[in-house]
Amino acid sequence: MIGAGSCDDATARSAFAVGEGLARSGCALVCGGLGGVMEAACRGARSAGGLTIGILPGDTPDDANEWVELVIPTGMGIARNAIIVRSARALIAIDGGPGTLSEIAFALQLGGPVVSLGSWDVSADIVKADTPHSAVELALQLATRSD
Amino acid sequence: MIGAGSCDDATARSAFAVGEGLARSGCALVCGGLGGVMEAACRGARSAGGLTIGILPGDTPDDANEWVELVIPTGMGIARNAIIVRSARALIAIDGGPGTLSEIAFALQLGGPVVSLGSWDVSADIVKADTPHSAVELALQLATRSD
Amino acid sequence: MIGAGSCDDATARSAFAVGEGLARSGCALVCGGLGGVMEAACRGARSAGGLTIGILPGDTPDDANEWVELVIPTGMGIARNAIIVRSARALIAIDGGPGTLSEIAFALQLGGPVVSLGSWDVSADIVKADTPHSAVELALQLATRSD
Amino acid sequence: MIGAGSCDDATARSAFAVGEGLARSGCALVCGGLGGVMEAACRGARSAGGLTIGILPGDTPDDANEWVELVIPTGMGIARNAIIVRSARALIAIDGGPGTLSEIAFALQLGGPVVSLGSWDVSADIVKADTPHSAVELALQLATRSD
Repeated sequence: MIGAGSCDDATARSAFAVGEGLARSGCALVCGGLGGVMEAACRGARSAGGLTIGILPGDTPDDANEWVELVIPTGMGIARNAIIVRSARALIAIDGGPGTLSEIAFALQLGGPVVSLGSWDVSADIVKADTPHSAVELALQLATRSD
Repeated sequence: MIGAGSCDDATARSAFAVGEGLARSGCALVCGGLGGVMEAACRGARSAGGLTIGILPGDTPDDANEWVELVIPTGMGIARNAIIVRSARALIAIDGGPGTLSEIAFALQLGGPVVSLGSWDVSADIVKADTPHSAVELALQLATRSD
Repeated sequence: MIGAGSCDDATARSAFAVGEGLARSGCALVCGGLGGVMEAACRGARSAGGLTIGILPGDTPDDANEWVELVIPTGMGIARNAIIVRSARALIAIDGGPGTLSEIAFALQLGGPVVSLGSWDVSADIVKADTPHSAVELALQLATRSD
Repeated sequence: MIGAGSCDDATARSAFAVGEGLARSGCALVCGGLGGVMEAACRGARSAGGLTIGILPGDTPDDANEWVELVIPTGMGIARNAIIVRSARALIAIDGGPGTLSEIAFALQLGGPVVSLGSWDVSADIVKADTPHSAVELALQLATRSD
């Protein structure tokens, strides 16, 4: 799950629902581990008993939001975006700024599936979802197909 | 200078002219060091006596195009795109695929100047150039202003 | 847990016991995810119901040993050693070659605790253990103390 | 050239002489770009008209010592040590702390030549030099041999 470090309430509710949906489907949630969309998604995943993994840009675990269970402080700054993309079987992009765009670009370069829920529209290879529920369903389908 | 690893002849001519223009302005050319746009720009820079630096994704110098004088084989794959962006005082994006998009996204995230010569149009912060000559002029202006 | 990608049977038994001991103490096992010492430790951790995390140098999950539950394919080659060190609350080094030495060096640089079970002896800051059991106990003590 | 970010006067004199010797031999000097041994070596190289390249851990060029001509701010922290090792054709290690040890370990892992001038003695593959002059000569020989 990728998205910006700050977001409005409606976006946070979407992110929460995506995290919850992934956890209910038995998926671990990999994200950048910070605030905003990432925090809401982690909170959603934990509310459904899911595992949350935060791959942080900084060099200490302290920057992780409180809903991250496994913290990977890479100390590599924005270059850690490449690790998030490689670690996920499919990306769900929610809203998002330039950091999210870099992750979508990496996924397109690597050929990995990207589902967009109101995020960047920069390629015909991005699959658009209308609701958090359909975003989770599409991501699961695409992750399975890319095996 | 950022752009894709393969390109048509017209794009290669533009890239050559950008490399040549940067070298004539006394700038060192930093790029990803591979083929296509990168190779044409390096060839242009060397034709004008400029210094060329290639920050490679792979782990040996062998992948560098023959016009790269200083080879930095990072061994970090696509994550090296973040290093290219940090090492340049301004980015000139020529044409380009998803790798170029990730570099533009990083520059937008870091607040660094981006000049586009027929490349991705994803932000109002990207300055558009019509010719290689104006791309070089704009990049020099923006690099100076960001000091 | 750090150590080389190939090892003899006695070392593998030690690594298995360390993984088992960490899992019994409720710790997640972070390692490089490949063979040898890493594989034996993951097998030990899983035998006791523990969680195993493999931070891989390569760009696909395929290189992970079969006992890694959470795979982080960094695509960053040996530079991923820095991420392993940052992600662990304490390092237990078992035997090991130059890769293990780079991880010990990073831990010493960052001030993180290192327990050695027959590994490199390059600093007075490394705590030596005689048995897998004592290695786990010392690591737990040092991880707690460094909080 | 690798070595610690602070050093005594005698070590700085050695580092200066190594930088000077490399520049006189027509080599570009690659280093971590910070103070201490790195700064003295860069100063030596520049005094003989050589090119100096600083591969920085931080995310801005500001941390480079004033004798670095080409600054590569990686933003990757200590993981940039792997890039220094890959970018050099041979390493000369002068004195040094744990950061230097991590670089020596990486070079041993990658099979690249290491010359030690009073630095870590952790492998029979490290070639010892007694003077700055012989360190440069040995490095040049080993770099050529490893082509």
